[in-house]
Amino acid sequence: MAPHPQTPLAPQAERDAMHRAIALAARGLGSTSPNPVVGCVVLDHVGRQVGEGWHQRAGGPHAEIHALAEAGEDADGGTAVVTLEPCDHTGRTGPCSRALIDAGISRVVYAVPDPGPGSAGGASTLAAAGVDVEGGLLADEAAAGNAAWLTSVLHGRPYVTWKYAATLDGRTAAADGSSRWITSAEARADVHRLRAESDAVLVGSGTARADDPHLAVRGVPGATQPLRVVVDTEATAVRAGARVLDGAAPTLIAVARDADTAELEAAADGSPAEVLRLPRAAGDRAGLDLDALLTALHTRDVRAVLLEGGATLAAAFVAAGLVDRVVGYLAPVLLGAGPPVLGDAGISTIAQALRLTVSDTLRIGPDLRITAVGSTAHPTDRPSAAVAGQPEQTEES
Amino acid sequence: MAPHPQTPLAPQAERDAMHRAIALAARGLGSTSPNPVVGCVVLDHVGRQVGEGWHQRAGGPHAEIHALAEAGEDADGGTAVVTLEPCDHTGRTGPCSRALIDAGISRVVYAVPDPGPGSAGGASTLAAAGVDVEGGLLADEAAAGNAAWLTSVLHGRPYVTWKYAATLDGRTAAADGSSRWITSAEARADVHRLRAESDAVLVGSGTARADDPHLAVRGVPGATQPLRVVVDTEATAVRAGARVLDGAAPTLIAVARDADTAELEAAADGSPAEVLRLPRAAGDRAGLDLDALLTALHTRDVRAVLLEGGATLAAAFVAAGLVDRVVGYLAPVLLGAGPPVLGDAGISTIAQALRLTVSDTLRIGPDLRITAVGSTAHPTDRPSAAVAGQPEQTEES
Repeated sequence: MAPHPQTPLAPQAERDAMHRAIALAARGLGSTSPNPVVGCVVLDHVGRQVGEGWHQRAGGPHAEIHALAEAGEDADGGTAVVTLEPCDHTGRTGPCSRALIDAGISRVVYAVPDPGPGSAGGASTLAAAGVDVEGGLLADEAAAGNAAWLTSVLHGRPYVTWKYAATLDGRTAAADGSSRWITSAEARADVHRLRAESDAVLVGSGTARADDPHLAVRGVPGATQPLRVVVDTEATAVRAGARVLDGAAPTLIAVARDADTAELEAAADGSPAEVLRLPRAAGDRAGLDLDALLTALHTRDVRAVLLEGGATLAAAFVAAGLVDRVVGYLAPVLLGAGPPVLGDAGISTIAQALRLTVSDTLRIGPDLRITAVGSTAHPTDRPSAAVAGQPEQTEES
Repeated sequence: MAPHPQTPLAPQAERDAMHRAIALAARGLGSTSPNPVVGCVVLDHVGRQVGEGWHQRAGGPHAEIHALAEAGEDADGGTAVVTLEPCDHTGRTGPCSRALIDAGISRVVYAVPDPGPGSAGGASTLAAAGVDVEGGLLADEAAAGNAAWLTSVLHGRPYVTWKYAATLDGRTAAADGSSRWITSAEARADVHRLRAESDAVLVGSGTARADDPHLAVRGVPGATQPLRVVVDTEATAVRAGARVLDGAAPTLIAVARDADTAELEAAADGSPAEVLRLPRAAGDRAGLDLDALLTALHTRDVRAVLLEGGATLAAAFVAAGLVDRVVGYLAPVLLGAGPPVLGDAGISTIAQALRLTVSDTLRIGPDLRITAVGSTAHPTDRPSAAVAGQPEQTEES
């Protein structure tokens, strides 16, 4: 049995391990809801990596359990580097704090404190057992990777990503409506990866009517199919034979409470698709109450929503302050005319503009992908919200 | 005196030297018109860099002369790596081919063959004198750096860069017209660098009227001020006291031949600004004949034009097929309403879209700069054009 180290491991080894753990955690995106994504790396007493793991599916073992199993005896006297504070509760799996103590782990380094009301406290338990515990390493980066789950815990609603594809001058189609293809095959394949990382994919009635999209994930091995959601306020956009009515993925058609659904019910007859009635938006805004829609999705364990269009639905989300992240696929194309990528969001002057922060840019084939996040994307900036917020608000309004 | 090498230098040393030479050449952008930008690195007989230089100003020494002067005796038996085929003519300076031979250079590696009718032939002269000559190394990269001059030689008109600043959704201002500031101070500073690299900066009457822009370069030490050009077809946009009428840089106000210029002449009285009459655009298009405008600028030694706006003038250039490069400053901002960055360019269906190639992306402060080039941006792809083209077409149509 190796002697326990007298001094903490070199910070660089722990940083490297945390970067690795964050990358491992991301493999769980789209498959762990309603749980967070978590990655863990176990270093032995001299700082060599001896185990790693990530939380793969809700109900399955936590990241720490996978990593400890791979490390075996080498975990004794070692350090566990984990993206989220280890849990302290006995749910479908035992508490990770106990497993780490039992394995002889002498130091735990985590990135983000667990704000969950039922699972927090692992750090205290570990410390009480004599484990050296340190939190906050690469916390912003790890929190960004867990933005969907953190948003859900802190705000009681899913994290919303608006995805669009447009020309450099912000058009989604030419003046005559033609748009195949503005972005490349590579960019379209990347959208399937985005879908696979999401729990639900949303489109509005205009897109449903014009494009009859399928919305399921293709070409991503092992992907969990997201819930397909059509926001069809008047219940007129999803017609018999619509591709979302097939069995490739679950489907929800959200309609107004007072909508006449006779035709829709007939169209969906024999389909596994579900029709959900929701209140209309308040005031003079068109469409559904988006808070009610997101709350309904939250109760169905949806943590990450991908908003795929079109311009009207995206504008409604922007107007409601419900866009957390924007992923834009920009084609190096100029049109000078045609429908704009974003509709009227009630913004009339520059001071009201929605200002985001670019978090990533990537060349994808001939196109460019820009990712920008809103100020809600760093939930750890406001730790008090973990207490004062409205965790697990599940009632449908 | 070192012995001449028996074998060519290691290709990697020459590639490294060419990268350096291309970077040196770029220092001349904006100051060498009507000449090309050129960079040169001299390696000694074992491949060590012993001299470098670039063409700094029209009328001054060529890049090779600077580099040979720095190398001195060490040039003997060495290699000259130069971005453009050395010239063979005696203009304001002697031929570089002669200077290289006299310095004892035993090998010359150049990137782009000189398509100029009066200056080409340096490679043959060098070879005839027993110098080992090789062309084409990093030719695409070097040609991109010399795109303005190559376009002028091959097409008899300046190279046109359209610069814009917009939100992610392609708006240049909010619905009420407010736009200060969509992009950041860092992005605006970068625009001054772009201006400094250009020989002329163009705006249309809408921008002149709305913004009263100054268009001179600020904050770029040693910059040559570009020619400021206002496309003021009806001669109504530049009024008394307009900032372009000051003496900070030369100014040209392009108006229609039949425009009533009484007010403009009065406004410009006492200003060094020049009024230029040009034909109107053919057919039912508004504005001036842009070919005539570019030809007029070409005769004034303008090789690189920066088109700064607005949406209407840019659309006219796109419609005329006269945009070679686009530099977009994208702010991570959403508006959902407001004037689009590009006006109607006569493109009604996706097949007519102007398709470009992304050549560079860069984060500038909070913003993103995207550079994309058209198919005319690689003149060396069409070497036959060097012969069959219309070099030095200087007549005004």
